[in-house]
Amino acid sequence: MQTSPPLSAQQLAEFSSFAQTLADRVRPLSRKWFRHALSIDTKADASPVTQADREVEAALREAITQRYPDHGIFGEEFGALHAEAELVWSLDPIDGTRAFISGNPLWGTLLALLHQGKPVLGVIDIPMLEERWIGAAASPARLNGEICRVSACTELRHAILYATSPDIFEGAELAGFNALAEAARMRRFGGDCYSYGLLASGHVDLVVEAGLQPYDYLALMPVIEGAGGVITDWSGQPLCLESLGRVVAAATPQLHRQAMRVLGAALT
Amino acid sequence: MQTSPPLSAQQLAEFSSFAQTLADRVRPLSRKWFRHALSIDTKADASPVTQADREVEAALREAITQRYPDHGIFGEEFGALHAEAELVWSLDPIDGTRAFISGNPLWGTLLALLHQGKPVLGVIDIPMLEERWIGAAASPARLNGEICRVSACTELRHAILYATSPDIFEGAELAGFNALAEAARMRRFGGDCYSYGLLASGHVDLVVEAGLQPYDYLALMPVIEGAGGVITDWSGQPLCLESLGRVVAAATPQLHRQAMRVLGAALT
Repeated sequence: MQTSPPLSAQQLAEFSSFAQTLADRVRPLSRKWFRHALSIDTKADASPVTQADREVEAALREAITQRYPDHGIFGEEFGALHAEAELVWSLDPIDGTRAFISGNPLWGTLLALLHQGKPVLGVIDIPMLEERWIGAAASPARLNGEICRVSACTELRHAILYATSPDIFEGAELAGFNALAEAARMRRFGGDCYSYGLLASGHVDLVVEAGLQPYDYLALMPVIEGAGGVITDWSGQPLCLESLGRVVAAATPQLHRQAMRVLGAALT
Repeated sequence: MQTSPPLSAQQLAEFSSFAQTLADRVRPLSRKWFRHALSIDTKADASPVTQADREVEAALREAITQRYPDHGIFGEEFGALHAEAELVWSLDPIDGTRAFISGNPLWGTLLALLHQGKPVLGVIDIPMLEERWIGAAASPARLNGEICRVSACTELRHAILYATSPDIFEGAELAGFNALAEAARMRRFGGDCYSYGLLASGHVDLVVEAGLQPYDYLALMPVIEGAGGVITDWSGQPLCLESLGRVVAAATPQLHRQAMRVLGAALT
């Protein structure tokens, strides 16, 4: 892949506007299926996948291909197209399928635009709550158009910690998460991508997960960073396509360091 | 306490209408505090309690006392008044305070009317989602006015199981819950009273919890039963003021029996 200059503010604004159009377009599709009888298959990894996932991703791919035929796409349901392109869209049509199929509105559609493999734009859209977080490189993150900001929490003992479920952690990961929860002010489960939106808006201080796929976390990065937070893998490295799916997102660098110390101790 | 005849349909309809007025009245109060800086105290049992809880409960008590001065009241925040009355209101101003203080909209206001100690009317109101489940003895439960019904799930291996958090279970309770989750199709955490609404509407098949207080579960009973489900303690006994706070709510008697068998095996 050739290295080209970063995207201009104007380009980012254009893609950001397009991403919002995408999210607007598919909201009615996913909402239509919510709380209706679905044909639920079980994929190889046992995650439930629904007609809603496929219909939303197909609509997103069609809109992207039509507007930007040279952009790449990779999505949860239909795989990769032009993955070598300079600009690639990462799509998770329904993040939180387990919430979705149990009538729980805390699921979302995740969109990210990668420039040379790095996410420069991210959208967390929550169709049933009509909440949308958007973050783009070098701009403040916004929730429904209003600038949002992480909390000022710098101490683990004061931190509200979220994760989707204890079941996402394996072996030493679970020990690490439990040790972190012991040291935090409180922990709460449930939320999928919604937890990261709550972090970006300053209501939650720390989200720690494992077993995530790139299309789960790439969209989160510009949102969290645009809101002033820190998001890395469990060893402090930037998340990328090759990451192991372990994510630490924190309101402040101090909190992030404390979380990494506890998690690191459990993993070694 | 003297035994008097059951409430008439007309009386129930009147109280049901009043309960809806109560819920309407306090929705703006709790919504006003949501996602705003709160003065968060820590009660003796370490649960967070907020100004919102107190303001909502005070408004509920005032409205009940004004309309029905001879009714009793007991609430989470301000204790009991005329607890010996034939008709007593049970109030949980904000069920899911941990969700509330972390910006998560899945919290609710719970209202129950007890006749001679038995709940005959229950309301689960979810202010941020504008969803309200209501159940009254011998009437079908409703969500926002529409009749709702539990699922037809009769087998544990097909059941979607919810609980607020693994942290609500102690000792053998957790072993029981984990055994149940192993046998179920999937489990998900998070939700507080919202999980019971999802059960009443047929999206979730089984909710199993422990450590609940009477004001947490009394309002759930008329809703679950009115939707065709079963709700008891972990030994199959009806829930009452003296229950130990262990709750099993199931879509069908078959599923309820299977859940009780697994939970019972773990407790003995």
